[in-house]
Formats: sequence, structure tokens, C-alpha cells
Amino acid sequence: MNKDLQEYSHKRYNILTGEWVLVSPHRAKRPWQGQNETIPNEQRPSYDPICYLCAGNTRINGEQNPKYEDVYVFTNDFAALQTTSPNFFINEGLLKAQSEQGICKVVCFSPDHSKSLADLTVIDINKVVKAWQKEYMLLGSNDIINYVQIFENKGAVMGCSNPHPHGQIWSQSTLPNEVVKKDERQSAYYNKNKSSLLGDYLKQEIQANERIIYENEDFVVLTPFWAIWPFETMIVPKHNHTNITEISDNECLAFADAISKITKAYDQLFECSFPYSSGIHQAPTDGKPNTHWHWHMSFYPPLLRSATVKKFMVGYEMFGSPQRDITAEQAVERLKSLVD
Amino acid sequence: MNKDLQEYSHKRYNILTGEWVLVSPHRAKRPWQGQNETIPNEQRPSYDPICYLCAGNTRINGEQNPKYEDVYVFTNDFAALQTTSPNFFINEGLLKAQSEQGICKVVCFSPDHSKSLADLTVIDINKVVKAWQKEYMLLGSNDIINYVQIFENKGAVMGCSNPHPHGQIWSQSTLPNEVVKKDERQSAYYNKNKSSLLGDYLKQEIQANERIIYENEDFVVLTPFWAIWPFETMIVPKHNHTNITEISDNECLAFADAISKITKAYDQLFECSFPYSSGIHQAPTDGKPNTHWHWHMSFYPPLLRSATVKKFMVGYEMFGSPQRDITAEQAVERLKSLVD
Ligand SMILES: O=P(O)(O)O[C@H]1O[C@H](CO)[C@@H](O)[C@H](O)[C@H]1O
Ligand SMILES: O=P(O)(O)O[C@H]1O[C@H](CO)[C@@H](O)[C@H](O)[C@H]1O
Repeated sequence: MNKDLQEYSHKRYNILTGEWVLVSPHRAKRPWQGQNETIPNEQRPSYDPICYLCAGNTRINGEQNPKYEDVYVFTNDFAALQTTSPNFFINEGLLKAQSEQGICKVVCFSPDHSKSLADLTVIDINKVVKAWQKEYMLLGSNDIINYVQIFENKGAVMGCSNPHPHGQIWSQSTLPNEVVKKDERQSAYYNKNKSSLLGDYLKQEIQANERIIYENEDFVVLTPFWAIWPFETMIVPKHNHTNITEISDNECLAFADAISKITKAYDQLFECSFPYSSGIHQAPTDGKPNTHWHWHMSFYPPLLRSATVKKFMVGYEMFGSPQRDITAEQAVERLKSLVD
Repeated sequence: MNKDLQEYSHKRYNILTGEWVLVSPHRAKRPWQGQNETIPNEQRPSYDPICYLCAGNTRINGEQNPKYEDVYVFTNDFAALQTTSPNFFINEGLLKAQSEQGICKVVCFSPDHSKSLADLTVIDINKVVKAWQKEYMLLGSNDIINYVQIFENKGAVMGCSNPHPHGQIWSQSTLPNEVVKKDERQSAYYNKNKSSLLGDYLKQEIQANERIIYENEDFVVLTPFWAIWPFETMIVPKHNHTNITEISDNECLAFADAISKITKAYDQLFECSFPYSSGIHQAPTDGKPNTHWHWHMSFYPPLLRSATVKKFMVGYEMFGSPQRDITAEQAVERLKSLVD
């Protein structure tokens, strides 16, 4: 690894989005006198009578959850996207807008209110993966749905309003910004090289072995060279699958194992239930082959120095570029030592 | 205004960045059970002996601030960008990086520790504007500096670690992501239409009069059609200036007046010292004419419903597109009623 990258300000290029991140390695030493977060560490009960996601409980809209035993999926009661929006296009001078249809779902990972993905067994996480596959298939086969975004907001600091282990799926008729960027980059590379951009990148990372945190037969957990968040990671399948439904049962288990390993390492890093937003980027469900897509899952955790000090993506980051203080390689070293 | 835009999920196009924002007007009704912010509302003293930005005090690195009387500018003691980085380029397979040189400064708006821009007189804000002009000129004339980003992080919730009224300037050798996007869009429009993209947009907004919050002789405060943050606003000069140094003394005062009006309205909105990140986007200092640039200042405030409930830009927003619940027009109505 080039030593300059560990010492001097530089920017790194994200091959998937075409954007840059500013890295300031020397700045990690700056004292922090700003806001401290409260990351709740108290033990939660396995069942909370007032939690609207616990099995058997009644939700705000009066519907009752079944007495589910593993994973439970339902349509979001306050969905940001709906199937009922009429079709409209607005193109008045420099004002441009269009209707967006969609379906939003909630995926409860477990009936156990006290657990997070990090606490579940690989067998239980595997059930979540199976549910994601099923939903991608189901939503994706709907004519009005051309993209299925699976994600999780974990922790109050990440805008999660209920600690019950759950994620979300927002599926919609057009491709969101981030997906458009990754679609363009992967497509350009595939057309030129007839191979997967992320697949080729993975080969280079395995060879270099500088940013790899964990590896099993089918998946690699790494911090991408261009990571933005202090402890950002990515789970990349070794095989060039375009979406999550293309993987075998064995690969499912290997994926669940990778999720288990990185979430457990995260919880150990600052000895807290580690907050993050995670998401799966995969091929649009627009009926095209999308051979250029190589699906992957990313974790964007906000914490920087401890369970209470996070990285703020504010002024410069909003108006300029994302900026990070510790390098990807420094983060990898710490996370790697925590994966058994 | 098309009624569909106030009722149904849709996306709006940002003419300056080429990206979209998802708008879900019906979703503002959803109850909030998540994290609450603490926006400190206690009165601060005019002078704080342990504040490293107050006049006459000693900073962490041992340097002493002068007994300044209005605006004071100094080089950031923990600068993310430095002039001393050696030049390097990395292009190894799919890893791409390059050194970034720069100068970071801190701009104290006033010696009075207790005040924010909203509390300063127009005459005092005018001094801040003059300092921004001087720094843009000074930094911009440095050979290694091709872009000057002026910004402010206000409030602990926006990562600000010192409540003393101050902003920052990060100037650097290459153009950051957001600036590249705006450069491309404005340039494409200018080449095609031989007029300013933002200037033409402003004319359309003045005509429609649906998103205008305040207007004086030289400036308009509006919420752009494509706003992301709940109460996002933009100060747009009526004249097609490429950067802040091109405005006359009268325009300076009118700009200070616009800043004063919108920051005061913000403070009234939820009866608190309203947090935000603000920034000025303007022409690069790369020696080119940059005639296509139309400088402007934007405010990105995180609060959504009250002084304690903010909008979280998390899972879907990080992996998909920014998303907002109240429409730009609803926000304008509230802000407009607060500007006298
Ligand atoms: O420079 P400060 O005030 O120490 O830091 C603040 O603003 C910077 C520029 O937006 C951010 O990178 C930091 O995360 C934030 O805490
Ligand atoms: O859907 P929730 O959990 O109520 O809301 C959370 O996730 C959404 C999707 O990332 C965000 O738009 C909200 O700001 C956040 O609070």
C-alpha cells in the first residue's frame, strides 16, 4: 500500500458511482468537543407489550400481527410510496416532476424484541435472506415495480423509531439516484470489458489483501477503497450474480454467515449495539437481463471514535464531497481483529 | 400549482445537479416514536473564557486570538486540507486516487459568543459578507486553489463543536463532487441557451410566485422546487454574477439583508436557535471565465416537525434517493408567514 495514502490528504474514486471521497488521515487526532450520542445499551425484554412489531401485538392502524415465529413481512402502515398515485408528468419550463408508484414493506427479522441481526444465529439470519429473496421476486414481478430497495436502519441515531429487529423494503417504478449511478458505471465497464466491474475489483482486492475483513467460500467482507463512513463495509459475492435470488441455498447460508460475522464484529468495536444503515444494491426488476449488475450489500455506520462520537456528514460534505478522517485501511485493521 | 404534487408520491428533478428527490406529501401524518434532539436554548454569555474562538483567548495549539472587534479569520488548527501534501496519483487497476492540496480557514462572525447570524444586524452581517469576498479573492488567487467552499455548520446537531458564531472555508486544488455536478449542468444549459440556468429559473419562480419567501432589490430567498431538506432555502442573486466578489456594495447589503431575514424566520419557526448547514456555491477559481456560473447560497436545515424532531437521511436516502415528507410549497407557506 502506498504510504502517502496513510499520511496525506487525498481523494479516492468510487468506481461504482463515479464520485470521490476526500480522505484526511492526519485529522483523526483532532479533539472532539461536539455533540455526544446516546447509544442505549440496556437489555431489552424478549417481548414488549407496547411494541407494534412484536408478535400478536396490534399496530397503530388497528391491524394485529400474527403470532409469527421467525420472519414476518407486512406492508408499511405509513408507506412513502403507494400503488394508488395517478400517473402524471410535469414539464413546465425548468420545473420537472413525475409521479412515482411503489410498495413499501417492513421485514421483522425475529419475534424476539431483544435481538438484532448480530444476536441471531446463522440459521435465523438465513431465514431473513430467504424472505429478502421472496420479496425481491414478488415485488419485482409486479408490473409497476422496476426497482426493489432492501435496507435496514439500525439504532435511534440512524432514524430507527423502533428497536425491534427489522428492516424495510421500498420498491418503486423508477430507479433511484444511487442505483442509476451504479447502473451506469457497471454497464459502461461491462460493455467495454465483458466482465463484472465489481467481480474484477474483488479479484484485485483478494490479491492485494489490504482491505479484506473476512472471507468464506462464497462471500468477501471488505472495506471498499473509496469507503465514506468510518467503518463502512461491503459484502461482495464471489460469483457474478445480478441479484439475490440467483444464489444457491449454500450461498444463502454463506451470505448469512458473512452478515453474522460483520455485525458481531461491529458490536464489539465500541462495545455497543452498533448503529448503521445497510442496504442491498442489485439489478433493477425492469425485465432487462442486467448482466452488468453484480449485487452486493453495504453497511454505512456513523460511529467514528466511540459509542458516543459519530462522524457528521454536514457542511463541507453536503456542499462539497464526503470526507473521512481515518483511512479505509486503518478501519479494516480494527475490524479484522474483531472477526474470529 | 398542480394539485397532484401536494397529494401523491412523486419525484422532482434538480436542474443544478441532475438528481431527483422523492416527495411523499401524505407521509407527514405518520407519528414519530424515534430519537429526539436536544436543541440548547439557554442564553450564552457574550464572552466565554474557555471558548477557543472568543477574542483574546488561547486556542488548543497555543495561539492567541487577537482582541478582534467584528470578523476574525484564521487558518484551521485541524485542517482537513493542507498545502504540504506531496503530489501523487494512484492508478492501479481499479484503485484510483490522487493527492489533494488545500487551505482550511475559520471565520468568526462576531466577537460576541452569545450571537448567531440571526442575532446580528445587517451591518454586521455585511462585514461577514465582505470577509467571504476577501477570502474568495485571496484563496482563489493561490495557484494551488481551484475551488473555495464557504460554509457554516450551525448547531451541535449539525456537527458544530463550538457555539461561538463561526463558519468555515475549505479551499482546494480540485472540484468537489457537488460542484462538478452544478458546473456540468450550468455549463450545458449556458452553451445551449446562452443564458444563466439559475437566472432563467429565478425568472420562472418570480412569475409563478409559489416558492418565494422573500425578495429585495437584488436577491430572492426561495425554496427550490427540488428541495431535499424539510425547510431548505436558497438565496439567489437577481443578477448573473459568477461569484461573490462581483457584487456591488449595495448588493452586499441586500445579500446581508436576505441572510438576516431567512435566519430570523428560521429561529421563529420552532422557537429555537435553528440548526442548519449553509454554503455558497460559486464559480471555481481555476482561471477560466466560468460565465455559466450563477452563484447562490443554500441552507440545509435538518429539523422537520419541531425543535426536537429532525428528518433522518438514512437507509432509503443513502441507498436510493433523498426523500421528503412535506412539500416545498408547504414549507414556503410557513416560512413566508414568519418573514416580516
Ligand atoms: O470542522 P469541524 O467543525 O471540527 O467539523 C465539522 O465540520 C466538518 C466539515 O463539514 C465535518 O467534516 C465534521 O464531521 C464536522 O464535525
Ligand atoms: O420508515 P421509518 O423507519 O419510519 O423512517 C426512517 O427511515 C426512512 C427511510 O430511510 C427515512 O425516510 C426516515 O427519515 C427515517 O426516520
